[in-house]
Amino acid sequence: MLTFELLATEGAARRGRLTLNHGIVETPVFMPVGTYGTVKAVTPASLEAMGAQIILGNTFHLWLRPGLDVIRGFGGLHRFENWSRPMLTDSGGFQVWSLGEMRKIAEEGVRFASPVNGDKLLLTPEVSMQIQHVLNSDIVMQFDECTAYETAGHRTTEAEARASMELSLRWARRCLDEFIRLENPNALFGIVQGGMFESLREVSIAQLVELDLPGYAIGGVSVGEPKDEMRRIVAHTPHRLPAAKPRYLMGVGTPEDLVEGVAAGVDLFDCVMPTRNARNGHLFTRFGDLKIRNARHRSDDRPLDPTCACYACGGFSRAYLHHLDRCGEMLFSMLATVHNLHYYLNLMREIRAAIEAGTFAAFAQQFRADRARGV
Amino acid sequence: MLTFELLATEGAARRGRLTLNHGIVETPVFMPVGTYGTVKAVTPASLEAMGAQIILGNTFHLWLRPGLDVIRGFGGLHRFENWSRPMLTDSGGFQVWSLGEMRKIAEEGVRFASPVNGDKLLLTPEVSMQIQHVLNSDIVMQFDECTAYETAGHRTTEAEARASMELSLRWARRCLDEFIRLENPNALFGIVQGGMFESLREVSIAQLVELDLPGYAIGGVSVGEPKDEMRRIVAHTPHRLPAAKPRYLMGVGTPEDLVEGVAAGVDLFDCVMPTRNARNGHLFTRFGDLKIRNARHRSDDRPLDPTCACYACGGFSRAYLHHLDRCGEMLFSMLATVHNLHYYLNLMREIRAAIEAGTFAAFAQQFRADRARGV
Repeated sequence: MLTFELLATEGAARRGRLTLNHGIVETPVFMPVGTYGTVKAVTPASLEAMGAQIILGNTFHLWLRPGLDVIRGFGGLHRFENWSRPMLTDSGGFQVWSLGEMRKIAEEGVRFASPVNGDKLLLTPEVSMQIQHVLNSDIVMQFDECTAYETAGHRTTEAEARASMELSLRWARRCLDEFIRLENPNALFGIVQGGMFESLREVSIAQLVELDLPGYAIGGVSVGEPKDEMRRIVAHTPHRLPAAKPRYLMGVGTPEDLVEGVAAGVDLFDCVMPTRNARNGHLFTRFGDLKIRNARHRSDDRPLDPTCACYACGGFSRAYLHHLDRCGEMLFSMLATVHNLHYYLNLMREIRAAIEAGTFAAFAQQFRADRARGV
Repeated sequence: MLTFELLATEGAARRGRLTLNHGIVETPVFMPVGTYGTVKAVTPASLEAMGAQIILGNTFHLWLRPGLDVIRGFGGLHRFENWSRPMLTDSGGFQVWSLGEMRKIAEEGVRFASPVNGDKLLLTPEVSMQIQHVLNSDIVMQFDECTAYETAGHRTTEAEARASMELSLRWARRCLDEFIRLENPNALFGIVQGGMFESLREVSIAQLVELDLPGYAIGGVSVGEPKDEMRRIVAHTPHRLPAAKPRYLMGVGTPEDLVEGVAAGVDLFDCVMPTRNARNGHLFTRFGDLKIRNARHRSDDRPLDPTCACYACGGFSRAYLHHLDRCGEMLFSMLATVHNLHYYLNLMREIRAAIEAGTFAAFAQQFRADRARGV
């Protein structure tokens, strides 16, 4: 089940409330990514403490490891990974697509060799629905083909993007049929494709809306296109989706991208950026980003961000984090992940409060000024 | 400063209370090892929550990274690593000794090349005291020479062990002089050496006791000797040390070793075993040890130890831990470390309660039976 209430709007920005089988999600929301049934380097207790409302799981990865038989024994992903709040799973489409030369896409689905053990596998819309049914995620994503921005230097043409988008639409219908057949009690989202072509995205929207799905995602962005191309699609697509349903911008992005996405009418975001960048020493703060490996942090006793209420900023200096990173200590990744996720989650809290107060435009302006100031 | 109260005894086992500059330590106690200013894979908040009373820092490692200038800027190791409870630092002696061919031991001290950047360095009793003064640890260890059990197949002779022990005694006197000169407000412990020779250990004790130090350690065990050799020394040395002062058995050991050490009159223990073994998938439980990589855990929905109150056992199955380990996820090391440290700390809590109740002998018997049962 899924219900979505719109509590407030300001321009295209929306403050909403999503009710799912495992609980309530206040939107706009950022969803930390937990590929293998864990958000890397952070405990579920810590995620809850920092206010994560919903996390992601990756169908493709969990299908291969630990395998469905194991997760079925736990009645789904929630108990397996000790996370009681809502969860969204992707369809596996993006991951098999990312295998590049290692996979073959046909009408039926995608054939590929398991990167874990070389087994020949076939992922179809139906199989994706079957896997996600076992995972018992609150939001199930349709199996789609992500349209490439370019392939080996060749820009995807409009005809290629159209064929790809139409395949995703046929797969959406097969997903819905299988989702219904399985009597999955959760919510299936469709994914708008169409590459960098607004007219194709409008066709995709029109056809997906006919399926009357409980939510829609914007796919095929953040796939290697220039930033202004991404901005063009983010400005185009979200507000054309049904106003009464949640809108999810997949795989995006920087803090600036999130604020821009909200302004364009997006409700849900996910990205590996806060967690992956944390492990690489790239830290987000209110006053810009900080590379902890820089020697200037070596004896700096200030926290990463004096305005941040996270555990890392509450007791640890830049000098200590620099030292931990230099020594390859796991605690670095742990503290950096807590900080970056807290930053993203807190940014969304501030965005929600601003939309409620009708001050989102002013908030966005201050946000950009603060971020440009530098740490 | 250091005061030590004996609250109860049972045979040679002692229940004590150590008061140090940063707080009180109930003994017998296990001290988690925090080599580079972090107990690997665990936060200070988590250590406090699981009842760690005192942790270790390694003088040698911290001297090289981040370097004394950085730690001096924080007024010592406590604020640098965000740990407010007591701390013990070793002298660096064991680490330079472990460099093997890379170091040269003389009367003055140990010359070696930094494993970090190749710099030629000299560690002496005085330098060790100077470093530990900057670290401001509550318990400072004397600089000593660890006597090898064997070197390249050659068993250390009594004459060699005597010469090594006598060098450590001369270094103990130099450490005390420098400790006094620096007006270090903390407590300096002497280290009993003498290899596997009881008569030498008795000479070492007699000479160290003349220095009237506030505490004494048993060094030179757990250095590659057979288990029964270690047992012989642990049975011999602790109870010969002054009853009114704390006794610290360095670098030991398994849960069984801890119970045996307490029975022999030891008050303080440290060892990398719970943390290092955790990261390698070796987990300690009341009913014996468990190797999480074993395929039989693949779909086992039980916690590691149903009698354990740690965060890992409170919500995560063996199957999930097996999966995390297989995928190389950091959360595995985090949960395994919490579990193993909790096991060690809880074992010491149970030991303290048993000595207080006068039931330590019965406790030790039940402990051995439980551990032999198997998981």
